[in-house]
Amino acid sequence: MFDLNSYLGDVRQAVNRLLQELLAGRTPATRISQAMTYSVMAGGKRLRPVLCIAAAESVEGDRQTILPLACALELIHTYSLIHDDLPAMDDDHLRRGKPTCHVQFDEATAILAGDALLTLAFEILAEAGSRSTPDVQDRWLVAIARIASAAGFRGMIEGQMRDMAFEHEVIAEAELESLHRLKTGRMIEASVSCGAHVAGASMIQRHALDTYAQNIGLAFQVADDILNVDGDPQRLGKATGTDQIRGKNTYPSLLGLDGARQYAGRLVNNALKALDAFDNKADSLRAIARYVIERNR
Amino acid sequence: MFDLNSYLGDVRQAVNRLLQELLAGRTPATRISQAMTYSVMAGGKRLRPVLCIAAAESVEGDRQTILPLACALELIHTYSLIHDDLPAMDDDHLRRGKPTCHVQFDEATAILAGDALLTLAFEILAEAGSRSTPDVQDRWLVAIARIASAAGFRGMIEGQMRDMAFEHEVIAEAELESLHRLKTGRMIEASVSCGAHVAGASMIQRHALDTYAQNIGLAFQVADDILNVDGDPQRLGKATGTDQIRGKNTYPSLLGLDGARQYAGRLVNNALKALDAFDNKADSLRAIARYVIERNR
Repeated sequence: MFDLNSYLGDVRQAVNRLLQELLAGRTPATRISQAMTYSVMAGGKRLRPVLCIAAAESVEGDRQTILPLACALELIHTYSLIHDDLPAMDDDHLRRGKPTCHVQFDEATAILAGDALLTLAFEILAEAGSRSTPDVQDRWLVAIARIASAAGFRGMIEGQMRDMAFEHEVIAEAELESLHRLKTGRMIEASVSCGAHVAGASMIQRHALDTYAQNIGLAFQVADDILNVDGDPQRLGKATGTDQIRGKNTYPSLLGLDGARQYAGRLVNNALKALDAFDNKADSLRAIARYVIERNR
Repeated sequence: MFDLNSYLGDVRQAVNRLLQELLAGRTPATRISQAMTYSVMAGGKRLRPVLCIAAAESVEGDRQTILPLACALELIHTYSLIHDDLPAMDDDHLRRGKPTCHVQFDEATAILAGDALLTLAFEILAEAGSRSTPDVQDRWLVAIARIASAAGFRGMIEGQMRDMAFEHEVIAEAELESLHRLKTGRMIEASVSCGAHVAGASMIQRHALDTYAQNIGLAFQVADDILNVDGDPQRLGKATGTDQIRGKNTYPSLLGLDGARQYAGRLVNNALKALDAFDNKADSLRAIARYVIERNR
């Protein structure tokens, strides 16, 4: 039986150690590095790094090699949270159980801390690629391009634009799905596919992993929507019921709470089926798929 | 005699054409792509692309190969302007003679447009690297890491943090110099050094070009400060006298207007001297050095 908790613990520890190193470096802390560290180290599930490493390991990749990629994904995720929380956007005051970056520091520092985390992510990726052997450098360049595309104005950023535009406006399920695919799905897909690609996955393996990632990316969002309705604010580290107050389009509002739960279950089953041809090195990916909808935070 | 105006015209045209392509792509315009295009195409001197291409050509590099690098530098520059202009930062309403991005669109869109330009820059760089032959891919990875470092929290972003912190506070010349080196210098240096590196410059050539870039980077800032005192707002496309109103530390306020002019002249001479060992393929770099302090916008 695969022990997900110990796996998550190991990966998170390795990721957190490298993140701390990357942010602190050898120079004394500045206000901007304090703000960056504050937000990155505020906790969080490290879902993207975990997925990236699990995908790499499912095709016999080496964890140490993939670690910078995993950390870069978390830096980009944290940057997106900081900017989404800004007064001009969602104006959130609580994140991961702590004051958001602009509340703890100030708005200008929060904007720049987000910018800096995004920039640092690409620095880390390029450095890791440059340190690798010439035959693998192309894989890193492809990963950088794919991550940038997923995070960019045809991916995550367009998702945030639509999320804001659609508030207080009823949209169809297809539109909601495309919004989430953009806002969170494409980065989750990139986490899996880049982890596998840098580790040397074959085309067939990558295709299967893409299907896996698309399904759990969406399942993750459905589960998030459900937690916003019936989750425990204490455990979540953020307020619940906020989607309804804001008039956000969510799966529970569209399909009902039970319908949303069934949908999430179907998505996870699809994800598991995509891994049929993989051996037990994909057990971490299988366990993560189940965890995505069973988690309580 | 080298014809700088026709050189600048040619390079700007090539850069603008590729920028337009990269931003428009094959998809219909979205609000975010409109905001990005608005700010990128608002004009501007294209100094960083011009320097990047001139540096590459000074070591026999091919312009077409370097063009994506040149465009990425301009995207990063534009992102930094959009974010610096935000209400939480400098709260500027006019840029390049037009309403700033958050005035023309809205604050959330401006934040995301900046984020998207920064992200697109790295996508373009990685794609260009990935398209290149395996023996050159390492150069692209080194360039990406160097640009990210120059733009990041130990470079341009730290410069902006200090710029805001030092308003209405008198600082010494050494501090002002280090602020400018961070805020604009390091990206100008990266423009020159990455252009040369991707084009295959030798260590000795790169060392000379670094000296050139350090001097004109600073000269550019001194000239900017001077233009804020005695420039023509019409030509500049932005208000003058604003530094004094804001109590900003500038070279004219520190050295007087004449002292600042002499200092800029000395820096340009240093830059020219660094190019002594280069043949006439560096004439564009020589002409740009003179232009930096003779320009009126």
